Amino acid sequence: MAKSKFEYVKQFETEDKLLPNCWIVVRIDGKGFHRFAETHNYIKPNDERALDLMSKSAETVMEEFKDIVISYGQSDEYSFVFRKATNAYNRRASKLATNVVSLFASSFVFNWPRYFGTTMMQYPPAFDSRTVLYPSDKNLRDYLSWRQADCHINNLYNTCFWKLIQEKNLTPAQSQERLKGTMSSDKNELLFKEFEINYNNLPALHRKGTILVRTPKTSMENGDLDLSLQLQHTGSARGQRSRSTLSNKRSSRPNIERLHVDIIGEQFWSDYPDILNPK
Amino acid sequence: MAKSKFEYVKQFETEDKLLPNCWIVVRIDGKGFHRFAETHNYIKPNDERALDLMSKSAETVMEEFKDIVISYGQSDEYSFVFRKATNAYNRRASKLATNVVSLFASSFVFNWPRYFGTTMMQYPPAFDSRTVLYPSDKNLRDYLSWRQADCHINNLYNTCFWKLIQEKNLTPAQSQERLKGTMSSDKNELLFKEFEINYNNLPALHRKGTILVRTPKTSMENGDLDLSLQLQHTGSARGQRSRSTLSNKRSSRPNIERLHVDIIGEQFWSDYPDILNPK
Amino acid sequence: MAKSKFEYVKQFETEDKLLPNCWIVVRIDGKGFHRFAETHNYIKPNDERALDLMSKSAETVMEEFKDIVISYGQSDEYSFVFRKATNAYNRRASKLATNVVSLFASSFVFNWPRYFGTTMMQYPPAFDSRTVLYPSDKNLRDYLSWRQADCHINNLYNTCFWKLIQEKNLTPAQSQERLKGTMSSDKNELLFKEFEINYNNLPALHRKGTILVRTPKTSMENGDLDLSLQLQHTGSARGQRSRSTLSNKRSSRPNIERLHVDIIGEQFWSDYPDILNPK
Amino acid sequence: MAKSKFEYVKQFETEDKLLPNCWIVVRIDGKGFHRFAETHNYIKPNDERALDLMSKSAETVMEEFKDIVISYGQSDEYSFVFRKATNAYNRRASKLATNVVSLFASSFVFNWPRYFGTTMMQYPPAFDSRTVLYPSDKNLRDYLSWRQADCHINNLYNTCFWKLIQEKNLTPAQSQERLKGTMSSDKNELLFKEFEINYNNLPALHRKGTILVRTPKTSMENGDLDLSLQLQHTGSARGQRSRSTLSNKRSSRPNIERLHVDIIGEQFWSDYPDILNPK
Repeated sequence: MAKSKFEYVKQFETEDKLLPNCWIVVRIDGKGFHRFAETHNYIKPNDERALDLMSKSAETVMEEFKDIVISYGQSDEYSFVFRKATNAYNRRASKLATNVVSLFASSFVFNWPRYFGTTMMQYPPAFDSRTVLYPSDKNLRDYLSWRQADCHINNLYNTCFWKLIQEKNLTPAQSQERLKGTMSSDKNELLFKEFEINYNNLPALHRKGTILVRTPKTSMENGDLDLSLQLQHTGSARGQRSRSTLSNKRSSRPNIERLHVDIIGEQFWSDYPDILNPK
Repeated sequence: MAKSKFEYVKQFETEDKLLPNCWIVVRIDGKGFHRFAETHNYIKPNDERALDLMSKSAETVMEEFKDIVISYGQSDEYSFVFRKATNAYNRRASKLATNVVSLFASSFVFNWPRYFGTTMMQYPPAFDSRTVLYPSDKNLRDYLSWRQADCHINNLYNTCFWKLIQEKNLTPAQSQERLKGTMSSDKNELLFKEFEINYNNLPALHRKGTILVRTPKTSMENGDLDLSLQLQHTGSARGQRSRSTLSNKRSSRPNIERLHVDIIGEQFWSDYPDILNPK
Repeated sequence: MAKSKFEYVKQFETEDKLLPNCWIVVRIDGKGFHRFAETHNYIKPNDERALDLMSKSAETVMEEFKDIVISYGQSDEYSFVFRKATNAYNRRASKLATNVVSLFASSFVFNWPRYFGTTMMQYPPAFDSRTVLYPSDKNLRDYLSWRQADCHINNLYNTCFWKLIQEKNLTPAQSQERLKGTMSSDKNELLFKEFEINYNNLPALHRKGTILVRTPKTSMENGDLDLSLQLQHTGSARGQRSRSTLSNKRSSRPNIERLHVDIIGEQFWSDYPDILNPK
Repeated sequence: MAKSKFEYVKQFETEDKLLPNCWIVVRIDGKGFHRFAETHNYIKPNDERALDLMSKSAETVMEEFKDIVISYGQSDEYSFVFRKATNAYNRRASKLATNVVSLFASSFVFNWPRYFGTTMMQYPPAFDSRTVLYPSDKNLRDYLSWRQADCHINNLYNTCFWKLIQEKNLTPAQSQERLKGTMSSDKNELLFKEFEINYNNLPALHRKGTILVRTPKTSMENGDLDLSLQLQHTGSARGQRSRSTLSNKRSSRPNIERLHVDIIGEQFWSDYPDILNPK
C-alpha cells in the first residue's frame, strides 16, 4: 500500500492566495430559493422568519471569523467583509469562500426550528459563494451601496407586485404587466394611491436590509445604560436598531449588532469609523 | 438611488473557469472535526453513525449533481468526481466548490437526527472544499488511490491506537509512544498478537472507506432479482456492498450504490467501466 | 536604507504554475504586423524572407528550450509545444510566455539583416504571447490542426486577393468585394480559370506553414547518407522538407528540421511518433 | 479542411484580467545576463553603455504604452508602472507582460549598435517579465523603494568587490571573502580608507538607478528656456537629470525624462505629483 507513489497528485492543487491589502468580500447566495421559498410557504414579499434566520446564520459566521468587520444581508444573500489585512486561511480564496458558505448553510438548517417552529424543513438548501477583492475604501462602500440599492429596488417592486396580487386579486402575470416599465416614482405613487401606503414608512428591515456590525467593547460593558443613551440619537444610524438586536445585546452573544439603516450616505460611516479603520 | 453608478463593482469579480477535458474533483473536509467528534461523543476509532451520515450527505450531493460519476469518502472527508466533459456551472471552480460543500453541510445537519437519534447536535459544523483538476484517467485513479491508501494507513494506526487505550488502559500519550516508528507489518502483528485481531477481517467500511457509484438503470428495473444475482459474484467489487446500500436500493433513491471495496487495483475499474467512460 | 521594510511588496506577486500532465503551448503573435509589413515592403501574399526569419527565430527558441517538441508557424505567428512533463521554469506560465517571446523578438531583430539584406529595419517590432494547456494528445493535435487550417484558409484567400490586385488591377476594395461570400471551391476555381493556377501546386511553405521538429540523433550521425535515404520516401512527411532544412542539416545546428507538410492527417504523426511520446 | 471542428480548442485559453483600481507593475529581468555581460565585455561594476541601452529600450516601451506613468531601471531589470485606471489590453496580464517584454527585447537588439558601436552582439538575449498589482499608492511607492534600495545595496557591494579586484589584485573569491558579513558602514569605510572614494560622490546613475517620467507638455513647449530654469532648482529632484536626458529633450522624443534621484523620500513625489494622480 505504497502511499508515496500516489502523493504526486497533490501537485495538481492550485494556489489561490488573494492579493494583500484589499478588502475581501465573501458573498453567499441561496441556490434555487424561489422554489425553496414556495415549498416552505414563505410569506410574501418579506418573510421575517426567513430574514431573521439568514441574519442568525450570518452572526454564526461572524462569531467564527473574527476578521469580518461588517456583513450585509437582504433576501437570500449575505455579504461578509474581511478586513484588508486579514490573514485568515492565509487569504486563500477557496478556503474563505467554502468555510463561510458551509458554516452559513449548516447554521441555517441548525437554527431553522427556532424561527420556523413546526414548519418542518423539507429538504436541505444549498448556497453558492464567491470572493471579490476591493482595493479601496470607496470601492468597498460602493459595493455595499450596490447591494443596498438592489435591496431597495427589489423591495419596492415586490411590495407593489404582491399588493396587487394579494389585495387586488391580480394574477402574477397581470401584476407583472401592470408594473412593466414603471419608474420608482410610479411605484411609490401606486402604493400611496391604491393602498394608502407610504413606502418610507414600511419596515426598515425590508427597505434597507440588515447590517451586522460588532459592538464596541465599551458599549457592551456599559450594558443597558449605554443602550438607552444610544437610542436618544434618533437621527443617527445607531438609533435604528431592530428589536432582535436589542434583545440580542443582553444575550450570551452581545457583540454583534443588527442594523437596518442607510449605508449609502455618509452618516453610517461616521457613526462607525472603526469598520473602515479596524484597530 | 442610482443603482447604475455602483454597478461597476461587478467588474472586480474574477472568472475561474476550469480547464476543459479534465476530471474535476471537489473534495470537502470537515473543519475542526477532532473537537466536533469529541463534543458529540463519536465512537473511536470509527463511528458508523457518523460515517453513514457523511455518506448520506454525499448521496444528496450526487442526487443534485448528475455529472458526478463517483464519490469517495473516509473519516470527515468526501471527494466528488465530475465527468471530464461536465459543463455544470459552466465549470466555474468557485460555483462547483461552494454549491457542493454547502449542500453537503446543510444535508449533514438536516439528516443528523436520523443517525444520531437523541444525541443533539451542539453546534453547526463547517467544511472546506476545493476543486482539483486531473487531466488523465491515470491521474484520477491515482488521486482516488491516494485517498484510499490514506484511509487504510489512518485506520490501521487508529485501530491500534484506540485498542491500546480501550483494552490496555494506555493513555493517549503512551499509545502514541508505543506506535511511534512502527511499520504497517508491526501494527498488523500488534493487533494479531495482543488483540487476536486479523486486520483484514475488520469491516471493509473502516478499511476501504466508502465508494458511491450510480447503479445502471437496467439493474434498477430488475430489482431484487438482479441484486441476488450480483451477490453471487463474491469475488468482484459489486459483491461487497454494505447493508445500507441493499436497503437503499429498495428505497425511493435506488440509483446510488455504496461500496466498500478496493479501488486501487484493476478489478473495480473493470467491474465499473462506465465511470471512466460515461455515456 | 532599510531594505527589509520594503520587502513585503514581494508578497503581492502571484503564483501561476500550470497544471501538470498537460501539453503547454506558447503561441506568439506579431503586434501590428500589417503596418510592419507595409513599412518594410513585404512581398504579398507571402514574403519568404519574412517567413524564413520567423522560422529562424523559432529555431533559436527551440535551441534554448529543449523541452519544446514541435513548433508550428505561419504568417506572423508561431506556436511552441512543450512536452507534457516539462518542468521548465517550474511550469510558471508567465516565465514561459515571456522568456519565449522575448527571445523570439530579440532573435527576429538580430537575424533581420541575414534575410532582409540592405532593407533596414525601421523600428523594433513587438509580439504578444500566451500559454494554453491541452490535456490530451487529441486536444493538442486539434490545436495544431486549427492553426494549419487557418493557414490554408488565409493563404487561399490572400492568394486570390493579391492576384486580383496584382494581375487584374483591382483595388483592394474591389478585390475584397469580388471574394465576398466565396467558398473554398470558388476560390480554387477562380485561381484556375483566371490565373491558370492549380492551388495545390503552390509552394507547400505557403499552403502548410512551417513545422519545426527535432531530428533524431541517429539521423544526424548518419549525415548525408541518411538524408538521401529519407528523400526517397517521397510519399511520407519526411520527404517534403524545404531547402532551408537541407542546408541547415549540414550546419552547426543540425538537429532542427523544417517541414511544410500536412499535420492534420495521420501520416505525419506516424512518421514522427516521438513527438507525442517523447523519451 | 473543416476549420470549425478544431475551433473548440480556443476554449482552453484562460482569461487573466487584472483586478481594477490597482497599480500594475510590469517588471522585466535579463535572463542569464551574467554570461551576456561577460561575453560582451561589460565594464565592471557599471557599464554605462549597457545602462543607457536599457533606458533607451525602456523609453521605446513608454512611447508605445502611454499609460505607463513612471519606469525604474537598474542593472539588467526595468519596472514599468501603468496607471491604476489603465485599460490597456483590457488589463490582461499576459498581453501586458509579453508585449512590454518583447518590445523591450527587440528594442535592445535594435539599438545595440548605437551604444556598443563596433562591439558586435554575439547572440540575442532573453528577458522575463511579470505583472504585479499594488492596491495603494503606499504599496507602489514601497515597491519602487524596494527596487531602489536593492540598486544601492548591490552597487555598494559591487563597487567594493570590483575595486578590490581591479586595484588590489584580489581574486573574485578573495574579494567575496573580504566583504563577507560587512555592513553598509563597513563598505563605505573600506571605499574611503582604501580607495579614497566617498561613495556618495559616485555617479547618481550608479547609486540611484534610472527613473523615467513624462515631461509635462508645458515644459516641452517652453523648450530650452524652461530647461534652464529647471536646472536652477538644484535642490530638487528635477535638477539632477543625467546628460543623456538633456540632449534627449531636444530630440524628436522630448517627452520622457531620465532622472537619477532618490525616490524613497518625499521630495521626488512632491516634485512629480502627477505620477500618483495622473489626469
